Amino acid sequence: MNEKSNRCWLLINRPISEPSEDDFEIRENPIPDLGKNQFLVKIIYLSVDPYMRGRMRDGASYAPPAALDEVMVGGAVGQIIKSNNDSYSEGKIVQGNFGWQEYAVSDGVGVNVVDTSLAPISTSLGVLGMPGLTAYFGLLEVGRPVLGETIVISAAAGAVGSVVGQIAKIKGCNVVGIAGGSEKCRYLEEELGFDYTIDYKSQLNISNALDSTCPKGIDIYFDNVGGAILDEVLNHINLGARIPICGMISEYNLSEPQLVPRPTRALLVNRARMQGLLVWDWVERRQEGIEQMARWIKEGKLHYKEDILEGIDKAPEAFLKLFKGQNFGKQIIKVGDLQ
Amino acid sequence: MNEKSNRCWLLINRPISEPSEDDFEIRENPIPDLGKNQFLVKIIYLSVDPYMRGRMRDGASYAPPAALDEVMVGGAVGQIIKSNNDSYSEGKIVQGNFGWQEYAVSDGVGVNVVDTSLAPISTSLGVLGMPGLTAYFGLLEVGRPVLGETIVISAAAGAVGSVVGQIAKIKGCNVVGIAGGSEKCRYLEEELGFDYTIDYKSQLNISNALDSTCPKGIDIYFDNVGGAILDEVLNHINLGARIPICGMISEYNLSEPQLVPRPTRALLVNRARMQGLLVWDWVERRQEGIEQMARWIKEGKLHYKEDILEGIDKAPEAFLKLFKGQNFGKQIIKVGDLQ
Repeated sequence: MNEKSNRCWLLINRPISEPSEDDFEIRENPIPDLGKNQFLVKIIYLSVDPYMRGRMRDGASYAPPAALDEVMVGGAVGQIIKSNNDSYSEGKIVQGNFGWQEYAVSDGVGVNVVDTSLAPISTSLGVLGMPGLTAYFGLLEVGRPVLGETIVISAAAGAVGSVVGQIAKIKGCNVVGIAGGSEKCRYLEEELGFDYTIDYKSQLNISNALDSTCPKGIDIYFDNVGGAILDEVLNHINLGARIPICGMISEYNLSEPQLVPRPTRALLVNRARMQGLLVWDWVERRQEGIEQMARWIKEGKLHYKEDILEGIDKAPEAFLKLFKGQNFGKQIIKVGDLQ
Repeated sequence: MNEKSNRCWLLINRPISEPSEDDFEIRENPIPDLGKNQFLVKIIYLSVDPYMRGRMRDGASYAPPAALDEVMVGGAVGQIIKSNNDSYSEGKIVQGNFGWQEYAVSDGVGVNVVDTSLAPISTSLGVLGMPGLTAYFGLLEVGRPVLGETIVISAAAGAVGSVVGQIAKIKGCNVVGIAGGSEKCRYLEEELGFDYTIDYKSQLNISNALDSTCPKGIDIYFDNVGGAILDEVLNHINLGARIPICGMISEYNLSEPQLVPRPTRALLVNRARMQGLLVWDWVERRQEGIEQMARWIKEGKLHYKEDILEGIDKAPEAFLKLFKGQNFGKQIIKVGDLQ
């Protein structure tokens, strides 16, 4: 195999605020030989996700930081093209944290075989992968939607938010999505069935927008962005409100935290709950989530959209789009073709 | 009855920051005649509690504000000395929101008959009343203690905190109490069985104190005070931590909110939960809580301490002590004697 090369993106710098393409460097490595029980994956699609900004930071989080001068971490889906492992035979499609590269060697730890009968394999990085499962368990287990309640979702056109909103509709909620730009808002309302949307780029007064779209107050705020929108939502929550904290993309690039009033008074007065979540906590129920969402897709109740850039060289560009809200749908990179 | 007078404290001013005795005025009202189904209660003990600071404020909270120039709101326990209501017969001991006065007329709404066989009737304002039930349900239902976990409690020598800590010991937790002054800390450790205490008045570095008293991190923070201690605790929480928000006495007198970094990053990274609570939410389980705590008292597992000032004229003074941490045990006022 060694005559072929493996293009990889390395993390070479830890940004203090906005990441840039200069924080990454592409390198051509040889494809390593396989050891015992190992297999070689040809990456087909690579995922970029907001959480990766946290991995670029040095310091404690829910996972160790990405190492400098090593292949940047990230989920991917690919095809096994050579194998010394009977459980992972040649030809199978697998999804795992293979990193930003064209070929990955694995021994199967943390790798899932993709059921190609459910949906196109790219969905294993989106609606039937980490973001979709985050939405599914985060909404159902932390948000706990009840028929007739009002839910507000930030980054509603994103890979997580768009699934949260559609599941909330299935559960009979009034769904309000916050997204950037009229095209995304139109998509949420017309194609995904959201009841209302708020375009945060044109809507200067979020408080007024929440008043008019949530006349009965907010029962669930599924938060993907943090920042000033979260602060304002706290002024509009109902008794017993739930606030699943899924992400805070508006804050990831801040070199210093913003200073705001504590949310605790709003939580106390409303006996509300604010709770951080991570999809790993439901890893043993992964199959249930995938099967349920695949059923909803087949029934036409759950739609997804992908934003695909072509070529491994586009990985940093695709990643940086996330922080500007320039992706429209799950951002992935097409790296190679099935054999 | 009208020849007797009823001394009452009225709220005459809404303080912006620290309340003072000038915000209240004592007045002698006649004792009203009883209407149909009404009864007259002679107040024996009056309760002052931190939540009343919120009632002095105009604006939305979980209860309407106390009205200006009317009797200040507050819980009390007393004896029925005249009755037109068969369910509330003369001689019975009752607890209710009777207000800061010597005599109250009631029709029974929100009034509980006190089981005098359980404990002295003053406990219906403390360990077997609102503060004790807040501790019981707040800890068990929101905090959800697990054997071997570490819990930190602020205002730990207070009416709520002291009960939280003792129930957490019964449940097998490592209990760390934060209180003001060596006398309170000694009491918590020596008489209530807390494992460690932090004297926030002498301990200048709360972070170091949390490090040394919670070497395995914090699983539950039962928060009665809010403010800077809460901010610091967030740097010490474990995966899956729970933070019941019961009160924020350190913030009640602030005319402007303090500005701090949002707690959401700590909640996300640790998949932690922060949740406001109010004892009313478990009103239908009140009897269960009282009976369980009365059993623990009889078994010597649950102790309580009362700080009693004599005379209705002391009500504002007793109330103001709370905000300076000058009460030691449940603050009550002895207003009258049993007949």
